[in-house]
Amino acid sequence: MSQGFPDLYQTMLRAKAAANALGASGGKARNDFLRALSGLIESGFGAVLAANLRDVEKARAGGSGQALVDRLTLDEKRLRELNAGLAACVALPDPLGRVEDLSTRPDGLVVGRRRIPLGLIGFICEARPGAVVEAAAMAIKSGNALLAKPGRESLETSRLFGDLIAEALGQAGLPPGAITVLPDLGREELKFAIAQDGILDLVIPRGGEGLIRFVADNSKVPVLKHYKGVNHLYVDRLAETGMAIGLTVNGKCNRPSTCNALECLLVHRERLDDFLPAAVGALLEKGVRIFACERARAKVPGLGEAAEGHFGREFLDLTLAVKVVDDMEEALAHILKYGSRHTEAICTSDLGAAGDFLARVDASCVMVNASTRLNDGGCLGLGAEIGISTSKIHAYGPMGLRELTTTKFVVTGRGHLRR
Amino acid sequence: MSQGFPDLYQTMLRAKAAANALGASGGKARNDFLRALSGLIESGFGAVLAANLRDVEKARAGGSGQALVDRLTLDEKRLRELNAGLAACVALPDPLGRVEDLSTRPDGLVVGRRRIPLGLIGFICEARPGAVVEAAAMAIKSGNALLAKPGRESLETSRLFGDLIAEALGQAGLPPGAITVLPDLGREELKFAIAQDGILDLVIPRGGEGLIRFVADNSKVPVLKHYKGVNHLYVDRLAETGMAIGLTVNGKCNRPSTCNALECLLVHRERLDDFLPAAVGALLEKGVRIFACERARAKVPGLGEAAEGHFGREFLDLTLAVKVVDDMEEALAHILKYGSRHTEAICTSDLGAAGDFLARVDASCVMVNASTRLNDGGCLGLGAEIGISTSKIHAYGPMGLRELTTTKFVVTGRGHLRR
Repeated sequence: MSQGFPDLYQTMLRAKAAANALGASGGKARNDFLRALSGLIESGFGAVLAANLRDVEKARAGGSGQALVDRLTLDEKRLRELNAGLAACVALPDPLGRVEDLSTRPDGLVVGRRRIPLGLIGFICEARPGAVVEAAAMAIKSGNALLAKPGRESLETSRLFGDLIAEALGQAGLPPGAITVLPDLGREELKFAIAQDGILDLVIPRGGEGLIRFVADNSKVPVLKHYKGVNHLYVDRLAETGMAIGLTVNGKCNRPSTCNALECLLVHRERLDDFLPAAVGALLEKGVRIFACERARAKVPGLGEAAEGHFGREFLDLTLAVKVVDDMEEALAHILKYGSRHTEAICTSDLGAAGDFLARVDASCVMVNASTRLNDGGCLGLGAEIGISTSKIHAYGPMGLRELTTTKFVVTGRGHLRR
Repeated sequence: MSQGFPDLYQTMLRAKAAANALGASGGKARNDFLRALSGLIESGFGAVLAANLRDVEKARAGGSGQALVDRLTLDEKRLRELNAGLAACVALPDPLGRVEDLSTRPDGLVVGRRRIPLGLIGFICEARPGAVVEAAAMAIKSGNALLAKPGRESLETSRLFGDLIAEALGQAGLPPGAITVLPDLGREELKFAIAQDGILDLVIPRGGEGLIRFVADNSKVPVLKHYKGVNHLYVDRLAETGMAIGLTVNGKCNRPSTCNALECLLVHRERLDDFLPAAVGALLEKGVRIFACERARAKVPGLGEAAEGHFGREFLDLTLAVKVVDDMEEALAHILKYGSRHTEAICTSDLGAAGDFLARVDASCVMVNASTRLNDGGCLGLGAEIGISTSKIHAYGPMGLRELTTTKFVVTGRGHLRR
């Protein structure tokens, strides 16, 4: 089992043992960790920012693009937000221990489902160094151990966060193996780690499609992931013009690099005279490049020509595909063909159309008169989010604390036998 | 994508399209299918029994063992039970469409989780020909399409069941691709099918450890499975003697070939004078072979000597390992080391010990004063069972209709934007 990487294997066994201990830990010790980590980050602001600056300078010197440098950079505001997230996590109810669906069977057997942690979770991320802190907080809050591999570009920041996390575990009296941050892990070691079925219970990759495919292809353990968010807004015949423009602009421009950004606008053919030109004007003002179908271009001259490859594409920048549809059936067919089951929205004031759309679209989050950008654990009330799943197994959509747990059956009898 | 097996690939695409249609089907049409299938089996008793007899004769002629022939054989009683299961499935509430956790966020956004089917499920089983009928019933009831591969040994019975299922789909007005039974599928075709990520949403193998490992190793799709059930009963210091004997004998002897049978008895050292000899007497009377540790053999002469390999083993016959432990800590450590996270039980009248055991044992089903044989979807109130999962992802324990569904977020706003 440990061929090639005996040290890593021992580290993983230590993490697994810590997972077993964490399962029996109380909610108080787990919250103590969150408070201790928050305090250590607060008093270590200067050191964290200095370590981060070294990462940023190295990335710049290595010729990294501005987008990566942006995601990599921590400033005092971002650190304060990170700490506010830890405080919010303390305030969330303990996801563990509750017994659900308790019932007494006709023969008197008492059956319930007790909420328990998953065990040991592998977390692999890129660029944004705060992600490891957030994942550690959610793992401990939900009683799971975590093995975290941050991106190489955040090496210095991640090492320091790893030290602070280790110290916070000690202060809270939790086992040191409960969170293991491995910023130096190489690609072959990572492959070895995610193949350890029986040690890891779940792997969550966060990052670009390349990283996620690498993890999915090499893992022997269940992986919760989404590859991409190809998200549509369908502007229905009965959409309010102002609302539809707001949803379009917010979906595309609020933060184009995220997975819940809008990538394709579907417009009902009766909305070509009022909505379409106004929406295009608002988008162009924001600097959006538009690739549109023939019918849209005939109505609003000067738009780029949509090629087949523009549909089903995740642009991740200020680019938008636009297509005119005859009716909702055509919109639904387009979404079924090109969507990625991430986030799909309709703008309409027609209750029947809204109900049909909610019922018939297969996506982790289906929205009526709301921006696709709101498909986010925080906005939807999960409190915190460790990722978004577009597979239907275990979780579909944003994953909060509950998605980091499962239930075991707890059964009490009085000598009950099977007949 | 379709290299090598274009016909199979087309069949799978047809099944996927049927899955999309089923997701929008009403509960009435899905129950109509169950009633139609029940009627067709009822009126086809003679033909089913004749087809099954041909399978049984072929198995006997091929030198199959009695255990396989037993599982393969259908008689009128088993067919009536199969039909009673279909009727019971009709009576279960529709698992689809319910919106859970509906809440209004502080900003007025209305967020809920709507229960939906998983999509297209691959089901691979061995020997017991009724399993395909049960899986088809549960799949349709929960709005999923099914691609089923029964074992080669039940070829004739499965072909006939496939015909009856196809006819029942037609009578209920459901798409013909909703259930596809492929008794003739070869090993390479099966490998191809379970590698189709993006078409299949889930694979459930039911059978021996060899089949399950084959599926787990070759699938690119999430697999819900258990490899084996190495289940323990810990007889505590304060166990009632009569109850403890009853649980031991029922756990081991009620149906030894099943995954929830008892494989190892752990006895508190203070129960060597009263419980142990009485339990051994009752077991020997039932023909059970016992392999025991030194301390047990010193107390009850004539028992077999337990080698290391007897602990952690799934015997699946009338064999039982016995070990004396000093206290519950030693019992918990033994279960952690040798258990398979399937079913673990304690016999005790001590409330504190019962609570500790329920809290600390990591298994899909943890029981107090109840036979391990009761870890079964029917006994625990799920209504029906398509398998037992010992992975913690998606399902942990018996999987009923709810475990064949997931939820999507449904969100309604009034033009809500992300700030």
